[in-house]
Amino acid sequence: MYIFTLIANIVLISVPLTLIYKVSFLTIYNIMLESLKKEVFDANLDLVKHGLVIFTWGNVSAIDREKNLVIIKPSGVSYEKMKAEDMVVLDLDGKIVEGKLKPSSDTATHIALYKAFPNIGGIVHTHSTYATSWAQAGCDIPNIGTTHADYFKDEIPCTRQMTKEEIEGKYELETGNVIIERFATLNPDYTPGVLVNNHGPFSWGKDAHNAVHNAVVLEQVAKMAYLAYNINPQLKMNDELIKKHFFRKHGPDAYYGQ
Amino acid sequence: MYIFTLIANIVLISVPLTLIYKVSFLTIYNIMLESLKKEVFDANLDLVKHGLVIFTWGNVSAIDREKNLVIIKPSGVSYEKMKAEDMVVLDLDGKIVEGKLKPSSDTATHIALYKAFPNIGGIVHTHSTYATSWAQAGCDIPNIGTTHADYFKDEIPCTRQMTKEEIEGKYELETGNVIIERFATLNPDYTPGVLVNNHGPFSWGKDAHNAVHNAVVLEQVAKMAYLAYNINPQLKMNDELIKKHFFRKHGPDAYYGQ
Amino acid sequence: MYIFTLIANIVLISVPLTLIYKVSFLTIYNIMLESLKKEVFDANLDLVKHGLVIFTWGNVSAIDREKNLVIIKPSGVSYEKMKAEDMVVLDLDGKIVEGKLKPSSDTATHIALYKAFPNIGGIVHTHSTYATSWAQAGCDIPNIGTTHADYFKDEIPCTRQMTKEEIEGKYELETGNVIIERFATLNPDYTPGVLVNNHGPFSWGKDAHNAVHNAVVLEQVAKMAYLAYNINPQLKMNDELIKKHFFRKHGPDAYYGQ
Amino acid sequence: MYIFTLIANIVLISVPLTLIYKVSFLTIYNIMLESLKKEVFDANLDLVKHGLVIFTWGNVSAIDREKNLVIIKPSGVSYEKMKAEDMVVLDLDGKIVEGKLKPSSDTATHIALYKAFPNIGGIVHTHSTYATSWAQAGCDIPNIGTTHADYFKDEIPCTRQMTKEEIEGKYELETGNVIIERFATLNPDYTPGVLVNNHGPFSWGKDAHNAVHNAVVLEQVAKMAYLAYNINPQLKMNDELIKKHFFRKHGPDAYYGQ
Repeated sequence: MYIFTLIANIVLISVPLTLIYKVSFLTIYNIMLESLKKEVFDANLDLVKHGLVIFTWGNVSAIDREKNLVIIKPSGVSYEKMKAEDMVVLDLDGKIVEGKLKPSSDTATHIALYKAFPNIGGIVHTHSTYATSWAQAGCDIPNIGTTHADYFKDEIPCTRQMTKEEIEGKYELETGNVIIERFATLNPDYTPGVLVNNHGPFSWGKDAHNAVHNAVVLEQVAKMAYLAYNINPQLKMNDELIKKHFFRKHGPDAYYGQ
Repeated sequence: MYIFTLIANIVLISVPLTLIYKVSFLTIYNIMLESLKKEVFDANLDLVKHGLVIFTWGNVSAIDREKNLVIIKPSGVSYEKMKAEDMVVLDLDGKIVEGKLKPSSDTATHIALYKAFPNIGGIVHTHSTYATSWAQAGCDIPNIGTTHADYFKDEIPCTRQMTKEEIEGKYELETGNVIIERFATLNPDYTPGVLVNNHGPFSWGKDAHNAVHNAVVLEQVAKMAYLAYNINPQLKMNDELIKKHFFRKHGPDAYYGQ
Repeated sequence: MYIFTLIANIVLISVPLTLIYKVSFLTIYNIMLESLKKEVFDANLDLVKHGLVIFTWGNVSAIDREKNLVIIKPSGVSYEKMKAEDMVVLDLDGKIVEGKLKPSSDTATHIALYKAFPNIGGIVHTHSTYATSWAQAGCDIPNIGTTHADYFKDEIPCTRQMTKEEIEGKYELETGNVIIERFATLNPDYTPGVLVNNHGPFSWGKDAHNAVHNAVVLEQVAKMAYLAYNINPQLKMNDELIKKHFFRKHGPDAYYGQ
Repeated sequence: MYIFTLIANIVLISVPLTLIYKVSFLTIYNIMLESLKKEVFDANLDLVKHGLVIFTWGNVSAIDREKNLVIIKPSGVSYEKMKAEDMVVLDLDGKIVEGKLKPSSDTATHIALYKAFPNIGGIVHTHSTYATSWAQAGCDIPNIGTTHADYFKDEIPCTRQMTKEEIEGKYELETGNVIIERFATLNPDYTPGVLVNNHGPFSWGKDAHNAVHNAVVLEQVAKMAYLAYNINPQLKMNDELIKKHFFRKHGPDAYYGQ
C-alpha cells in the first residue's frame, strides 16, 4: 500500500514536471530560434543599408551549431515586404524545418560551406559592384594594402570556372564545392570571403552580423584594388606589412580594439 | 395590344439599362485608364528614386493592349511639378486621345516598339550613366556574368549608327526602326533592353514597373561590365553558366522566387 | 496774381510728386536687386544640392543688363552661414556698389565674360569632379552623344595653358581673356561652358538658374565621355545626330518641351 | 602684537585665496581639456559625415601645445556608441593621463608627427578610397591642378616601403618616422598630408577641424588626379599656376576669403 502510494505520488508529480520541462525546453528552444531569425533578418536589411544589394540580389544565413539548423532569407522576396518570421529554417540535408516560403535559391551553397568550414556562423552572398566585377574578370584580388590585410591574410581567391556537368547538375551545391576546392590551401578563418567566377562574392564570419561586416570590407577592398592597379599596374606588395596588420587584429597577439 | 404593351415595356426597361451599361462601361473604362496613368506616373518618379535620371532626361510609357492606347510622360515637364493627370494618352497612330500637354518627344519610338514587340507592356528610356556610356562607345554589353544572365539571355545589343536620311527624316520613328532591325535575330522577351548608338538605353517589360526594374538592372550590368573589362580585358565568359542563370529565373523550368 | 498762384500750385504739387517718384523708383530698384540677390544666393546653394561643390569651391553670379550691375557670392564664406544679403553687388569696373563682404576672388573672370558674351545672364564656376579632371588633363570634351548635343552644339572646349605673364599679372582677368580667346570661333550661346586648363569648368546661361543647370549637364557629360572613351577609345561620333539633337531643343525649329 | 595680527590676517586671507586660485586653475584647465575632447570627438564624427570612413577605420587627434597633451579617439570603438568623454588623453611619451579606454592603435604615429612638426595642432588618419588607392599604388599624387594647389604647394608625397625591421619593431612609431623622413625636403605647413605606402593617408592642420578639412581635400584631389591621368597620361602641369593658387590662399600675400 505504501509503495503504491509512493508510485502514485511519483507519477502524479513527474507527469506535470515532464510537461513543464518539455514546455520550457520548447520555449527556450523557440526563443533562441526566433532570436536567430531576427538576427538573420536584420543582417539582410543591413546589406541594403550598406549599399551592397539592389532589389533582392543578396542573401544572409546563420547556423545554430548545436541544433545543426540553418536560417536563411526566403527566395525573391522584396526587402520592403520581408519580415523576421519569413526566414526559413532548414536542417543540414536542406529539408525545411520551419517556414512557409521557399528558401533562397542559393541555400545549397550555404549549407555546403557550413559543413566544410566548421568555425563559421554566418554567410552572406551579394552581387556588390566591385567584388562582382573582379568575379566577372575571373581574378583573385591580390593583398596589396593594410585595409585588405586587416581582415584577409591572403588574396581574396576567385574560384575556377565551373564545368558544363557541374552547372547542369546540382548547380548550387557544386558552387559550394568549387569554393571548398579553392580553399584546399587556404584557411577560411583567415580568408573570410571568396569570389565565385563569373558570378559574385560570398563572405562569412562568426555570425550573420560579422559576415555582413566582411562583405562590406570585401567590396571596399575590391574597389581600392581596382583603382590602385589603374594608377600603377606594377605596384609592389609588402608581405611583412600584410602579416603585421593581419595579426595586429587577429590571433593571440592582437592588440587592436578594446 | 398585348404586343404593344410588351414592346413598350421592353423599351421602358432597355433604355435605362443601356444607359446604365454605357455609364458603367465608361466608368470602368476611365477607372482603368486613370489607374494606368497613375502607374506610368509612379514609374517615371521611380526613375529619379533609382538615380537613373537627371532633370527631365527620361520617360516611361505603358500600353493598354485591349484598347490599343499608349500612356506616356509629357515632354520636358519637371518631375517635381508633374502630376498623374499630366500623362498623355495616344492611339497607335500617335494621335492624342486625352491630355492637355505635348507627349514625350520620344513617343514615336515607344509606339514603334509596342507595334513590333507584342508581349511588352511598358517601355523606359533614360540617359543613365553607364548604359549611356556604352551606347556612346557604340558597343554591345557582352554577357559576362550571372547578374546580366539573370535578366538578359544574350548581350545587351547596341544599334548601328543612324544614317543622315534617317536622322533628318522621321527621326524618332527611325530610332524605333533601328532597334527593331537589331532584334531581327534576338528575342525581345529574352533581351528586355537595347542601347541606341551615340544616344542611350531603352528597356521594356511586361508593364511600366517591370520596365523600370529592367532599366535599373541594365545600368548596374553596364557598370559591372565596364569595371570587369578594366580589370581583365581578356576575361572569359561561361556560356553554360549564363544559360543556367537565365532559365533559373525565366521559362517553364524557373525555380527562383516564391 | 493768377500766374503766381498757378506757379505756387505747381510747386506745391510737383515737390511731393517728385519725392513720391524718387521713393517709388528706389523701391522698385531695390526690390529688383534684392530679388536678383535671392536668385544668386539660391543658385549658389543649388551647387551644393547637385553635388558640384565641396566647402566653398564654387561661385555663381548674375548680371542685371539694364543697370550693368553684377551680383556674386562673397569670397570664402561657408554655404551654411551664407545669407542672401551677403551677396556682393559690383559695377562692370569691378567696383563694389553694395555689400559688406569681399566678392569671390574669381569676380574679374565673371565680369570679363559678361562683357564679351552679351546674351548671358548668369555664370557658374565649380571644381566639379569629372569636368575638373578633363580640365586638368588639358583636353576638350568631344561631342560624342545626344546628352551632350542636347545642350552643347560642339565640343566643350579647354583653354590653352596660361603664360607666366598672365598668371603673375591680373590673373583672374586673364583667366577670362583665355576663355574669350578660345571662343573666337565658337558661339557662347551654343556652347554654354568651358574648361579652364589645369583648373576647372565655367558655365553660363540666360540667368543664374540656367547657368547652374548647364553646370550639372557639363559634369554629367564629362563623366559619360570619360567612361565611353575607356570602353572604346576608337568610338565614332555621328555629326548629323549631334546637329539633330541640338536643334531639337534650340533655335526656331525646336520641338522639345511644352 | 600688531605684526602678529597682520600675519594672522594675511594667513586668514591667503589660505582661502590659494584655494580659490587652485580650484579656478583646475576648473579652467579641465574646461579647456573637455572642450578639446569635444573638438576631437566632433572631428571624428565629421570623418563619417564626409564619407571618408567605414566602420572604425579612421582616427583624429589634437594636441594642446601648452600642456603637451594629445587627445585621440579610442581604439576600435564604433562611431555610433562613442562619446566625447571616451577620448583618451596622453602625454608625449604616450602615457595615458586620462581616459578608461585604450587609445587608437596609431597613437605612436600621431605623437611622432606632433614632435616633428611643431606648427600642427590636429592629425587625421583615414582609409579614404582614392587616397588609399594611391598609397597602395605607392605613388606620389602630382600637383596637376588648382584644386590641389589651393591647399598643397607640392605633390602629395608617398613614403618609401617600410623594412622588415621597422615593421616587426615599434611599427606605429616607425610609421611616423618614414613620414618624417619623407619630409626632409618638404615643408609640413605647405604640404598638410602624406600617403603611407601600401597603407593610406595622414593629414594635418592647425587644429583637428582643419586636419579633417585637409583630409577631405586630399581625397578629392586624389580622385581627380586618378581621373585626369586616365583621360590624358601625358598631361602637362603648370608650375606658375600652382604657385599662384597656393599663395593666393597662403602666406603674407593671400587674398582669398574675408
